[in-house]
Amino acid sequence: MKFRLAQIQMPVYKEIRLSVEYMERMAARAAAMGADVIALPEMFACPYAVGNFPVYAQEERGPLWQTCRETARRLHVYLSAGTIPERDPSGKIYNTAYVFDRQGNPIGKHRKMHLFDIAVEGGQHFQESATLSAGDQVTVFDTEFGRFGLCICYDFRFPELGRLMALEGAQVILVPAAFNMTTGPAHWELMFRSQAVNNQVFAVGTAPARDESGDYVSWGHSIVADPWGSVAAQMDEKAGIQVTDIDLDKVAAVREQLPLLKHRRTDIYVLKKNGF
Amino acid sequence: MKFRLAQIQMPVYKEIRLSVEYMERMAARAAAMGADVIALPEMFACPYAVGNFPVYAQEERGPLWQTCRETARRLHVYLSAGTIPERDPSGKIYNTAYVFDRQGNPIGKHRKMHLFDIAVEGGQHFQESATLSAGDQVTVFDTEFGRFGLCICYDFRFPELGRLMALEGAQVILVPAAFNMTTGPAHWELMFRSQAVNNQVFAVGTAPARDESGDYVSWGHSIVADPWGSVAAQMDEKAGIQVTDIDLDKVAAVREQLPLLKHRRTDIYVLKKNGF
Repeated sequence: MKFRLAQIQMPVYKEIRLSVEYMERMAARAAAMGADVIALPEMFACPYAVGNFPVYAQEERGPLWQTCRETARRLHVYLSAGTIPERDPSGKIYNTAYVFDRQGNPIGKHRKMHLFDIAVEGGQHFQESATLSAGDQVTVFDTEFGRFGLCICYDFRFPELGRLMALEGAQVILVPAAFNMTTGPAHWELMFRSQAVNNQVFAVGTAPARDESGDYVSWGHSIVADPWGSVAAQMDEKAGIQVTDIDLDKVAAVREQLPLLKHRRTDIYVLKKNGF
Repeated sequence: MKFRLAQIQMPVYKEIRLSVEYMERMAARAAAMGADVIALPEMFACPYAVGNFPVYAQEERGPLWQTCRETARRLHVYLSAGTIPERDPSGKIYNTAYVFDRQGNPIGKHRKMHLFDIAVEGGQHFQESATLSAGDQVTVFDTEFGRFGLCICYDFRFPELGRLMALEGAQVILVPAAFNMTTGPAHWELMFRSQAVNNQVFAVGTAPARDESGDYVSWGHSIVADPWGSVAAQMDEKAGIQVTDIDLDKVAAVREQLPLLKHRRTDIYVLKKNGF
């Protein structure tokens, strides 16, 4: 089973309208290139800053959500609509990933469950928890190509989450993300390659293009790591579209040759969702 | 807290006596260089082949074990005595790592718990389970420098095990290992770097030197990855000693800056040893 993936490594504008226009233009171009699945970056229409999340937040089924749904339907593609700051009815703000199918139906939703609070000496400081609340679900969803996992950026640092998605049957894990100039060169490729080989999945990281003038400077480098842990495709820091043909037969082939999931010593250790 | 680590990337001879003589000579040299901890490779005195394990196996407290203990005591060092094929009283064979303290006391013992059974198309085939039995313990032990974890080669492929050792307090994880010419270039450095950064520990992989004439050709590349996931030291494929000064304060520093262990969502997922 094969599909064509297009990742849109896009600039994020102060005006939502400009980000949306750019996204729509590039998504149309990606669809014309034969993309079956189009992936957008984390916070693709909200400059990444703690103070912006409440200001840019929209309710689910709000204008940006509707635009994404409509884009998927119109282009007849699966759209992993990066993430959008989501205001829930109680007023809490989440960093939320939505996925729509070719008919524009919402088929996946993940709220970032590990908030990014770091303070690297002489490097990056950030405290998402100042304005965001954390999700509490491990997310997988089904497509015509097979089962996908979905998580967001810092979530993917945690081997537990990648493993749980794989154990729930994910063959591809989509990760809208935005590493920075400290963690990017140190850990971006390492994280995608290691999660990919450990779980023998395709790991897809889609990031915003770099904007040196922003508060938070994105590393870019949108990436696809294959189930053997090799980099199948990786961009530099500039805006653009990366197209990758994904052959899901490789998942089964690698799992047969190097049966890591089968060799787990579940008699010795247990990894499970709480309450299960 | 600091200590000096010496890894002995050594050839493995058909005759145990030759491997032992080489090990003793290099260990003396490492001690003269100020090593506090000396690490040997997986199966450092048994050419790596399924058929050899029963032939070279010795009981615990047998001659090879005694030699290692005596080497640690004589040189007044901690000795991670790579691994030895261990015949237990029931006749089962294990791939077993032993660690001795400066007085020659046995302070750590780990039986490989994930057996290496792989069949890569056009690449490496191996079936440890044909002659070996698997251990069933997660292993940590204490030294004057802090708590160490201990596992063997393929064990370290499993994020669950690295995490469990870190959760039990390991700040350094010693991994006698022997990747091959298929998995070495693909995954060796990736595995050590990712386990190191995910668990914010020093991850130490010690391998045999490459012998192109062997059945199983070792990748070599003995490595130290630091808690930030950087390669602190890495050898090529040739025999030699690698000396690295380890500053354990870096563990606490990285854990404070990028608090991955603290950010685990233990309300959502649970990783634990069975029966605990």
